[in-house]
Amino acid sequence: MRFTSEHRLDDAVLEREFTLGEIPGLLWTPGPASAPAPLILLGHPGGLRKMYPRLVDRARHCAEQGYAAATIELPGSGDRPRSAAAEQARADLQRAVRAGEGVDAEIVDRLVLPLVDRAAPEWQGALDALLALPEIGGPVGYAGGVISIGVRLAVVEPRISAAVLFAGSFVPRAMVEEARQVTIPLLVLLQWDDESNDRQQALELFDALGSKEKTLHANMGGHTGVPSFEGDDGNRFFARHLT
Amino acid sequence: MRFTSEHRLDDAVLEREFTLGEIPGLLWTPGPASAPAPLILLGHPGGLRKMYPRLVDRARHCAEQGYAAATIELPGSGDRPRSAAAEQARADLQRAVRAGEGVDAEIVDRLVLPLVDRAAPEWQGALDALLALPEIGGPVGYAGGVISIGVRLAVVEPRISAAVLFAGSFVPRAMVEEARQVTIPLLVLLQWDDESNDRQQALELFDALGSKEKTLHANMGGHTGVPSFEGDDGNRFFARHLT
Repeated sequence: MRFTSEHRLDDAVLEREFTLGEIPGLLWTPGPASAPAPLILLGHPGGLRKMYPRLVDRARHCAEQGYAAATIELPGSGDRPRSAAAEQARADLQRAVRAGEGVDAEIVDRLVLPLVDRAAPEWQGALDALLALPEIGGPVGYAGGVISIGVRLAVVEPRISAAVLFAGSFVPRAMVEEARQVTIPLLVLLQWDDESNDRQQALELFDALGSKEKTLHANMGGHTGVPSFEGDDGNRFFARHLT
Repeated sequence: MRFTSEHRLDDAVLEREFTLGEIPGLLWTPGPASAPAPLILLGHPGGLRKMYPRLVDRARHCAEQGYAAATIELPGSGDRPRSAAAEQARADLQRAVRAGEGVDAEIVDRLVLPLVDRAAPEWQGALDALLALPEIGGPVGYAGGVISIGVRLAVVEPRISAAVLFAGSFVPRAMVEEARQVTIPLLVLLQWDDESNDRQQALELFDALGSKEKTLHANMGGHTGVPSFEGDDGNRFFARHLT
């Protein structure tokens, strides 16, 4: 892990860019540093630069609670090399959504499953590096999309204690099955009229998640319309579980 | 409105029993009294004595926020005269639930529609009397079940500014249509495995509600398993809307 830039957003938050091999990432730590901070991994759909305003807003929210926050670029997004197969699958999905047809499960599988298989070990590698920093301690939470990546991490990564999952992307059938293995406390956010989602599938995924403590928060509006009070609700969820 | 008893639960809450004609009720006011308090009407499935522990818990939660809380007995519950038709409908519904069959829409209509038609004007009468007290001011919220009564009140009673509705009872089809007329901000609570509810119908009702600002909180477990943190979430919801 190599830090490539650093600046203070204000007295409360230090923002650092880093690279982990070829993977760019961002780390926000609450300041001034005292005890090692719990860590929230901020999931997103890919494209750090485009997502930056929303990510930094969530990182500030984390810092208010004394949490560090970090994120990495997804495979095939931002400045990372594209995969022809993933680009084709993404184009097929967007065409199906625009046409107002149902999206074939086969397209969702082609787009999401390879992404999950590549991204999850990268997030785990980032977690290794982040937890080696003296300013970061446990426990660790995951917050955001891609929900399939969050589900995979919840299953394979025992250092993640709780997750806020954004049901804002299409989910392969295989991930619904995998969801039954999740046991950590979950808060699942659903935008009721999300255009990049299938509401019934999202409800099925919520139902399938194996966790005894799971809560669904559904709000009106489209993909980017998550109300700001859900940021506070997420903080309170983590305050209950990251202790 | 006639007060029949009064005692302090502690320094923070004054509890008074009252009758409104033949209808018994309870009023909790935060103390010591200063400015007129906003009012939360506490809905419940009927049976004030049986419901008392949960109602007083919610009333204390309200008082912590500076809200008064009040409730009245439902027609045909507690010490109020039974209706043979309602008792028959309740028995038919319980038999269908026990048998694990789907509950006929006809049974739900027979049980719930006359209850809503009788209860809603009674709640409005109680509201008249309560708002005439110097220690109660506006604005007014409704919190709890029966959700069909909450929906009717949200439609017909302009003094109710926001509602936390508990989706914990069967809902007549006609109420799903009526729900489209609701415009006030709503927080809807759903217990995912509620035995006295139909999950799909509850989701359809949530979808039908006409309010632009509505949030669904679904938690695991049965009818009485609403997590305690939902009390805090309800308070924050009212803090946003009862101002």
